[in-house]
Parts: sequence; structure tokens; C-alpha cells
Amino acid sequence: MDLFELMMKRRSVRNFEDRPVPSDVVDRLLDVANNAPSGGNIQPLSIVVVQEPEARVELAEMVGGQPWVKNAPVSMVFCIDFYRVKKWASMFDVEFLGERALSLFLIAYADLMCAAQNVVVLAESEGLGSVYVGTIQSSVSHAREFFGMPDYVLPLMVLSLGYPKSVPKTIPKLATDVVVHRERYRVPSDDEISAAFESKYGDITDDVDAYLKRAYIEVVEADRQGDRGRVENAKERMNKLDIKSNAEFLFNLRYPQRLMVGMNSRLIASMRKAGFDFPGVGRVSAPGAPPSEASGTSP
Amino acid sequence: MDLFELMMKRRSVRNFEDRPVPSDVVDRLLDVANNAPSGGNIQPLSIVVVQEPEARVELAEMVGGQPWVKNAPVSMVFCIDFYRVKKWASMFDVEFLGERALSLFLIAYADLMCAAQNVVVLAESEGLGSVYVGTIQSSVSHAREFFGMPDYVLPLMVLSLGYPKSVPKTIPKLATDVVVHRERYRVPSDDEISAAFESKYGDITDDVDAYLKRAYIEVVEADRQGDRGRVENAKERMNKLDIKSNAEFLFNLRYPQRLMVGMNSRLIASMRKAGFDFPGVGRVSAPGAPPSEASGTSP
Repeated sequence: MDLFELMMKRRSVRNFEDRPVPSDVVDRLLDVANNAPSGGNIQPLSIVVVQEPEARVELAEMVGGQPWVKNAPVSMVFCIDFYRVKKWASMFDVEFLGERALSLFLIAYADLMCAAQNVVVLAESEGLGSVYVGTIQSSVSHAREFFGMPDYVLPLMVLSLGYPKSVPKTIPKLATDVVVHRERYRVPSDDEISAAFESKYGDITDDVDAYLKRAYIEVVEADRQGDRGRVENAKERMNKLDIKSNAEFLFNLRYPQRLMVGMNSRLIASMRKAGFDFPGVGRVSAPGAPPSEASGTSP
Repeated sequence: MDLFELMMKRRSVRNFEDRPVPSDVVDRLLDVANNAPSGGNIQPLSIVVVQEPEARVELAEMVGGQPWVKNAPVSMVFCIDFYRVKKWASMFDVEFLGERALSLFLIAYADLMCAAQNVVVLAESEGLGSVYVGTIQSSVSHAREFFGMPDYVLPLMVLSLGYPKSVPKTIPKLATDVVVHRERYRVPSDDEISAAFESKYGDITDDVDAYLKRAYIEVVEADRQGDRGRVENAKERMNKLDIKSNAEFLFNLRYPQRLMVGMNSRLIASMRKAGFDFPGVGRVSAPGAPPSEASGTSP
């Protein structure tokens, strides 16, 4: 299969065969992760490879009890790692302040995702499936403690990999021309937006089981993989919340928005605990007011 | 070339032939961007494709005068786009609050980088070169205005592409086993850290021109591409700052750390202007103190 087709066919896989990934394959995946683009080639990145059964169980817990993380023969925990580079800089009496500079944080996180996506693509070409698990971001402190991470190391993304037992047929993507703009951003009309999402998500009311299989494959797979009751629970919540649209399903049930806003403080507390704190961020109380002066020289 | 080799050989290219990229190639790149993994498959992403000469000049300015952004036949501006999804949700009287939930912001930024890295890899296989340009993050408001972006759209990464005129031999990557940890994070010793970076960066004092070509290819390329004086300026600053180590070069000269910390407020102000504001972030003045209660329901 050529690379274009491979990328177009890739879907997140959550159902893995109980078959180890040969170590030379794992090593190649790690090599392309390490060779991914890195801002300024500073490589402020660490990857913890998790294969031992007990650690897989623990990692699955950390990410909210996702059974495929336990069942995948390999998971990789991608971390921003400023520990190594700060230490190195300090040997020459130089300050590296990535844990205080938002731009360095964002570039490091971009590095991390370049590395992870290289793994996704190469894994696919090796016949493996993979799934990103971002919910490690709600257990940063737990993960740091379990894996023994020093200050300035932040685990921010998990990628679980294995040979697929099945590849789901999921919700299709938006048409490319909805996402792509030529030369300037073209603000879409309400009708265009509505049509784009309608054609992506389809009708919600037809058949609840079929809908969940398409739109909430996580609960269907969790149910199948021993974490029973998830589908029934989702159906109950659909009734209770009177879910009648895809938008309600997504943002009231699946990703409850106010709950997610409320989780900010937890993530920030974990980051502070790891030594990350960005001067000049959030010092303004009234929205729209000019930001306070940051420490350091202004550009 | 197989995919592994392609990924291992890829280097950022900043010197492009004056040759257009065929539109079917551009379209394939955009298709794989659009088909990249997306958290919850929500696709809160827009890509502005820039090919017109005047817009290329303007974009090059925005990112700090990088001539390869002007010279590349195609650049793509990757944006978090919560406008579309908020609008859609509002049609069903549902709130989407990605602009207030840090986790949704971080997952959307991860989506954006998955899309961009798919482009990097497919481009490479099509004989194209590419370079990420993250400095758009210091011109977010300018970029939003120029491209006509509505609220809740944040341009955060540029990828410039074209047929390579030359591929630089750059600083090698750290050895994979420095970046990779098995089962648990292994805190490296000072000696290991020092050896890892020494073998990556090599000696600084040998030959300044050769050093800059290896370690600061941006100024060498900018010099070559008409933005003269960059190399001389870098040499002068090396003398003035008395740069004697790779760490000093990187973090005193190339990425001046205190300056970068001072840029936080500018990025945050741009984000606020676009409607992004995260309750619970930065409301704590004393480091280490518990975070204040966020609005919304706690998890």
C-alpha cells in the first residue's frame, strides 16, 4: 500500500491481539520517534516504553480505566523533558527556562507530537494499529510518581500499540475543503457548518446501538474488553440527558464541557508540582484588560 | 526508499527550488492532514494554504523575517479552530468550551501537530522538503488579522514546503537510548547527560563558520537567501557574549531564555484577544500553593 493510502485508511485501533511486538520493530518505532523534527533540534523529549503487565494495568488506570491500554502489548508515554536540558545547561552556568517560557513549552509539546505521529505512521506500515490516549493529562502527578520522573518532566500523551484484532469503522472526517482555506480564512456560513457536521455525523436517532458503535467506539470496545456496563451506562445517560443531537452527545455526554473547564486547576497544579510555572500568564483578572508586564526582557 | 529510512533521513529543508508544487500533490498533502488522528474525532483544526507571492512575503515577516517562508512555493498555517465547532454546537443550544478548557486546547494542539507531521512525512515521500516555523506564535494577532480569522481561531504552526535545492547536514540527534526509558524513567547521571550532548553537538571552538553551518543553519541560509549580515551578526554576538559552549550558544544567543520568558504576556494577550481564557490558570501567586477553585464542576 502506498503511503498516501496508508494515511487515508488509518483509524485508531483499540482492540489488539494478544501478541507481542518484536523488539526490533519497537526499536525502529523508537528510532523514528527520536529522529522526528525538533524545534532548534533541542530534543526536550523522553519516551517511557511500557510493556510489563503490571505497569500496563497501572497505566490503564491512570488514563481513566481504558482497557486497551492494559491490553496493548506496547504503550509509549511521551513526555516533555526539560530536566535533561536544564541539567546540561547548568553544567555551563547557563539557564534553560523552558518551564517558564510558554513558547518553549508549546514547541516542546509540538516536538513530542511529531515524534508520536512518526510512530503512528511507521507502526501502521508495520501492520500495527495504535491509539492516542490524551487523558494521561488528568493524571500527570500520578504518572510522574509511578514512573519516577524528576522535576521538569511532564507526561502528556500516551500511544498504545499492537496488532489489530479489528479496525473500527468510525465517524468519517469532515470534507477536506471544510478544514482547508486558500490564501485567507474563509468564514463558513451557518448552513455550511451545519451541512459539514451533518454529513460527518449522520442521524442520531436511528439506532442507538449502531450510533454508539460509530460515535462512541470507546464504550463499545471497553464493554467488549471486560469493562462491562459501559454501553448500558451510556444509553442511560443519553436518556437522562435527553440527548437528541450529535452536538449534545459530544459536548454534554461524552466531553462534558463545564467539567472539562473545571479540570484546568488540576492540570495546572500538576504542572506546578513538576516545576512548570509561566510568569505573565493569568495575571489579568478582567477579560480584555491588557496583560500585566511579564518578568524578563520584553521582545 | 522505505518509510523507516525516509523518516531517519528527513532533515528540515530551508532552501527551496523556485518550482511550484503541483496542485494534485498539494491536495494529497491536505487530505492526509485532514485524515490525521483527532481527539474524539472533533477536528478542531483549520489549515490556511499560502501560495500567492504577496501573502508569502507577509507570512515571512510575521515569523520574524525567515526568507525560506517567502521562498517556499507552499506554506501551510495550522490553526486550532474552535470557531466552527462552537458555532455548530450553538445551533443545538449546546456549549463547546474549548477556549476555556486547557485539556481541550492541548488535545486540539496535538491534533494540529498530527496533521502537520502527516504532511511532513508524505511530502518527504513526494520528493519535497519542509520546515516547521513555530515563531508564528509570536505574531498570532497579526496573523489572525491578515488571514481574516474569526474569534476562537489560533494560528500556531507554519509548515513551509518545496522541492529542496539542498538538504543541510545538521547536528545529529541524541542517541535513542538517551531519550527512551524502559518501564520506568531512568534519571541520567551528570556524566551521561554531558556525554550525550557532547557527542550531539561536538566542539564549539574549532571553526566558527563550520560551527554556524552545523548549529545555526538558519542564519547561514538566511544569509544565502538575501537576508545578508546574519552570519556576521551571529559571529559578533558570539564574541560579545563570549560564547564558549554549546549551551551558551543555544540559550544565551540563539534562544535567549529571559527574553523568551518575557514573551509569555504577548502570546497570552493574543490568545485572550482571540477569545481563549482558561479559568483556574495562573490565579495562584505563591508557587506551590494549592490552586484556586475553578469555575464549573470539579471532576
